Amino acid sequence: MNFASDNCSGVHPSVMAALAAANEGHVASYGNDALTRAAEDRVREVLDAPEAVVLFTATGTAANAIALGGAVQPWQRIFCNEDAHIETSECAAPEMFTGGAKLTLIPGEGGLIDADALDRAASFWAGEGLGGGKPGAISITNATEWGRVWTPGMVTEIAAIARQHKLVLHMDGARFANAVAASGAVPADVTHRAGVDLLSFGGTKNGGMGVEAVVAFDPELADRLAFTRKRSGHLLSKHRYLSAQFYALLEAGLWLDLAGHANEMAALLAEGLNSVDGARLAHPAEANQVFAVLPADAHDRARAAGATYFKWSSLDETDQDEVTVRFVCGWNTTDAEVEALLVALRG
Amino acid sequence: MNFASDNCSGVHPSVMAALAAANEGHVASYGNDALTRAAEDRVREVLDAPEAVVLFTATGTAANAIALGGAVQPWQRIFCNEDAHIETSECAAPEMFTGGAKLTLIPGEGGLIDADALDRAASFWAGEGLGGGKPGAISITNATEWGRVWTPGMVTEIAAIARQHKLVLHMDGARFANAVAASGAVPADVTHRAGVDLLSFGGTKNGGMGVEAVVAFDPELADRLAFTRKRSGHLLSKHRYLSAQFYALLEAGLWLDLAGHANEMAALLAEGLNSVDGARLAHPAEANQVFAVLPADAHDRARAAGATYFKWSSLDETDQDEVTVRFVCGWNTTDAEVEALLVALRG
Amino acid sequence: MNFASDNCSGVHPSVMAALAAANEGHVASYGNDALTRAAEDRVREVLDAPEAVVLFTATGTAANAIALGGAVQPWQRIFCNEDAHIETSECAAPEMFTGGAKLTLIPGEGGLIDADALDRAASFWAGEGLGGGKPGAISITNATEWGRVWTPGMVTEIAAIARQHKLVLHMDGARFANAVAASGAVPADVTHRAGVDLLSFGGTKNGGMGVEAVVAFDPELADRLAFTRKRSGHLLSKHRYLSAQFYALLEAGLWLDLAGHANEMAALLAEGLNSVDGARLAHPAEANQVFAVLPADAHDRARAAGATYFKWSSLDETDQDEVTVRFVCGWNTTDAEVEALLVALRG
Amino acid sequence: MNFASDNCSGVHPSVMAALAAANEGHVASYGNDALTRAAEDRVREVLDAPEAVVLFTATGTAANAIALGGAVQPWQRIFCNEDAHIETSECAAPEMFTGGAKLTLIPGEGGLIDADALDRAASFWAGEGLGGGKPGAISITNATEWGRVWTPGMVTEIAAIARQHKLVLHMDGARFANAVAASGAVPADVTHRAGVDLLSFGGTKNGGMGVEAVVAFDPELADRLAFTRKRSGHLLSKHRYLSAQFYALLEAGLWLDLAGHANEMAALLAEGLNSVDGARLAHPAEANQVFAVLPADAHDRARAAGATYFKWSSLDETDQDEVTVRFVCGWNTTDAEVEALLVALRG
Repeated sequence: MNFASDNCSGVHPSVMAALAAANEGHVASYGNDALTRAAEDRVREVLDAPEAVVLFTATGTAANAIALGGAVQPWQRIFCNEDAHIETSECAAPEMFTGGAKLTLIPGEGGLIDADALDRAASFWAGEGLGGGKPGAISITNATEWGRVWTPGMVTEIAAIARQHKLVLHMDGARFANAVAASGAVPADVTHRAGVDLLSFGGTKNGGMGVEAVVAFDPELADRLAFTRKRSGHLLSKHRYLSAQFYALLEAGLWLDLAGHANEMAALLAEGLNSVDGARLAHPAEANQVFAVLPADAHDRARAAGATYFKWSSLDETDQDEVTVRFVCGWNTTDAEVEALLVALRG
Repeated sequence: MNFASDNCSGVHPSVMAALAAANEGHVASYGNDALTRAAEDRVREVLDAPEAVVLFTATGTAANAIALGGAVQPWQRIFCNEDAHIETSECAAPEMFTGGAKLTLIPGEGGLIDADALDRAASFWAGEGLGGGKPGAISITNATEWGRVWTPGMVTEIAAIARQHKLVLHMDGARFANAVAASGAVPADVTHRAGVDLLSFGGTKNGGMGVEAVVAFDPELADRLAFTRKRSGHLLSKHRYLSAQFYALLEAGLWLDLAGHANEMAALLAEGLNSVDGARLAHPAEANQVFAVLPADAHDRARAAGATYFKWSSLDETDQDEVTVRFVCGWNTTDAEVEALLVALRG
Repeated sequence: MNFASDNCSGVHPSVMAALAAANEGHVASYGNDALTRAAEDRVREVLDAPEAVVLFTATGTAANAIALGGAVQPWQRIFCNEDAHIETSECAAPEMFTGGAKLTLIPGEGGLIDADALDRAASFWAGEGLGGGKPGAISITNATEWGRVWTPGMVTEIAAIARQHKLVLHMDGARFANAVAASGAVPADVTHRAGVDLLSFGGTKNGGMGVEAVVAFDPELADRLAFTRKRSGHLLSKHRYLSAQFYALLEAGLWLDLAGHANEMAALLAEGLNSVDGARLAHPAEANQVFAVLPADAHDRARAAGATYFKWSSLDETDQDEVTVRFVCGWNTTDAEVEALLVALRG
Repeated sequence: MNFASDNCSGVHPSVMAALAAANEGHVASYGNDALTRAAEDRVREVLDAPEAVVLFTATGTAANAIALGGAVQPWQRIFCNEDAHIETSECAAPEMFTGGAKLTLIPGEGGLIDADALDRAASFWAGEGLGGGKPGAISITNATEWGRVWTPGMVTEIAAIARQHKLVLHMDGARFANAVAASGAVPADVTHRAGVDLLSFGGTKNGGMGVEAVVAFDPELADRLAFTRKRSGHLLSKHRYLSAQFYALLEAGLWLDLAGHANEMAALLAEGLNSVDGARLAHPAEANQVFAVLPADAHDRARAAGATYFKWSSLDETDQDEVTVRFVCGWNTTDAEVEALLVALRG
């Protein structure tokens, strides 16, 4: 009954097998190998983006920071939701990689971005002088930090604002697989065709060991991204082991199978919460995360039964008889675990 | 009728005279001269802080960025009002000088900081893990960007939160003279005795040509600040001309006379607005800035009469029949100018 | 016949087995797991440094940059050999992680550091004013970029200079295992007991998949290093897979067995070059790298026979009938490969 | 008898007069004033560069760092003489403003740059992979830190290398006036017509109070430079007082008169050293600096007579019976001072 995070899950057997298969003899280092070429090609194929630049790296923070560092000037502002991972959980990595750009926080239900608020902020800062710092990028997270999913239409709306103000549009896709599996969208439709310029395409949380892809749909960014990855120490020497992971995940749709399973488990859990007295969802559970408000006694029972998950605090929270919690389902979450959790919660 | 900014004012004759007087022969450069020693001593005396480190520099952005850069780690958060100059008007200089620290915006009426909101934010981020970035400093502006003044008691309340979370407390005193003149506070009482660790003590807006003092009440910061000033190019070679300005301002209380006059002019203007139909103050005019909401026709009349001042937009503004404006009075604003402005506004 | 680099080698079977064994169920992320504790403890044990701080990361550039970034101020100078990896091959990562510190290059035979030259440089810059930037650290590489090995006595000589000038002494140990295996030194004797403050302890080149340990012998550096690793995106979420690698390498002396084997192969090759007409060693081959000057025809024969290795250019090189090359032996280099290479070279 | 530095000189009376004249009433701040436009135009006129971008700032370190920061990426290398001011005396400001670019030191007699060595270094680093960091810029100092002067032909030779490797060519002209006065070159001929892209045009050492101009001959750099100046705190609010200085210096050729005078005094001193037993020039004294090797007793006599100047140490120096010293002549150095110094030296 571990619902702490999808990064507490292990590595999918197919990925382990791919690592073992890649472990043959000498291979050129730093990504100059055939498997890396193949994995990059597979990413381009899945995204239907033959010109895209693809760079693998080992962590999600690295992917986001390299993407933003390669596209944003130090005197620019990056607009993101006030609960965006790049703001709350990456220890100012975007600031480090951009040389000091600012994150400007925009409200938005469930980690989405309110388009009107974004437009107002972008217009305001575009109108300010040198001192204000100029709008440079928008970063959205898909699926969001609160488990919501961006559809192509929603992305298009944000992208229109990006175009109007000449902003780069970045998508933090640490849970991109879950988002795609949930929405059923064609990957290209929810990214470059909707106006996304840069994608952090996550593999780690979805059965990988530690692999993310930075994808730039504008090939002009290739050099800046390559140098940014290198100077931040994120170009792995035995690079084939990153590539093997991503290749395995993309092969035969494994990435969508795993993410789809995790989403299903989350849906099962979310639905089951209806039968827990006093419990309610804090946000619609659209992907593989379930944010719930629990009566304190239900929470206590679940913990007593050995369930692992995080209380999810927020700045505005006041202590009370209820507890806000996050349950994350992974590729290896089982029906039985969900059922056991629900049994405990129901008491 | 120029109310655009106190940095549009010229240099006070006494400061010009001091520059001329300092212009004698060869003098050691980079601050190794007697006049610099004297000016530093005078700052320490005025602040009743014999151990304080004093560094002069030419701009307010430099003073703030050097102060914060010398005290804050790149993985820390600096709490400030959402309209703080360091956030809105310094082009990410604090981020540059700290190596990428984050500004975390706290609400507060009129540029002040709501103590409860600050405490909640500091507690929240202190409780987060590595990813959150740790609370590192609080920066308050006195007088604020909306013309409000911090009293010793108000600073003490913020300082208590700083102490509790081990945060450095910085005061952006670009208009420190106006604040002191307005509150009548003893300078030491509203700074180090109230818990301020670092002060940006402004001279430029108050009759100087271009001079600010970074003051660290903790002498342990001396080295960090000195290197930060040097590596940012803010140690002037012919340093005596900075020192001469500050010395002249502090001599015989000139700084408080000039600031007091500017404050009086602002009070006169604020009071006079009572007699302008439909006009009202947006914030109490406690120092030398007057923020007012004007009927559109009054605004038009003032502009037509040749008055210079800025419309003061904000993110939340919606277009309407009223205009929010800022009038700033300086050491050289005259009663006649204020009167002429009021006449124009009244129509 | 691949002598291109030890990072072209695969992963040792024991490390692969350890990864598979670690792949069980849910485990706390970000290093908060038992295996990470065990691996850290094992590092401390091997180094006989019970108080040491240990942080795993995936690349050698990251390890060096985190170590230096956690110990050096932006206004300081880091002294290193003019051919140090941190200068030639890390794309200014040390500059990025320190916020702009300078590398000051010191001559030294074979990548070692000339103690007199170091002392002169440290004394010179210590004597300069603010503008010079202050000496902050010394970084030595063991084994060096030219295959030389630091003994405890040699390190002690450098450490004396470090102590005199209050400099941090960092050892880039990307090939630390090879150095230890070559010198037969007790690991503690060639590191902290000789005066080393920070060690980058390499695992990747020595049979790992991608793992290095940053080791700080001064526990006061713990926080700075932890935040530096986090904000640079180098804290892996599924951290157990880093720990599993390092644990496996340190278990039962595997790290020294593998490095010792690589060293032996290099010695075999170096000795064999005696029988290649016109070939000579460019530097003593003390660890697992062999730098040789080859007659052009020998080089052509080796390449024709399918041998893979790099020509090793240098700034001072002039074209001629000879070619300087680097042969690197890894844990998986075989006698047969060495023999085949020598056969080809001999013609 | 002060020969310590030209930044120990005071401000020329015409510059003081210009400051006083500029001190009239309210003027738009941050450079949005007529005097600033006029001063910028005058710089463009003097340089015969109608499209050039001109930004004034208060220090030479700022000018250099803004110029380089606006033109160089963090993963690039800046080639400069090993004694360049940007390497030895600016506390890593170029590293700070570029976000961590490296300075790569090139030998060259008297602070000049050996073209062959430069070409080799540029070719070498261009040929290295990502890890090497790419060549980005060349910075030359005119007049050099050892008092040598670049002629148009010498600059053209360096510029050819810059063009070949697509490098930006920057000229640190803290003593540009002295260089131009010394060589008699047309300013345009020794800058943009010879291939210089960026010029730091010094005013401070040549009779100013604190003013330098960053000049970009490529107008495309305008935005990057403007934001870099702003975010580093180097855009002065009461900007007219910078502009007034530079305008005064350029008016009626004052800048060349003052620099020419300083050069003459240096020539007088250099010639006079012929008659000091055992003294010799360390470098040809081509501009306003005289580097001399003095017998210890001559040095003692000069000091005893009250002469102020610096011993000029270098890394390679060994103590002996001779002393290397620097004498700098300024706009206000007199024949009598030079004569008095020579008298003292002769004994």
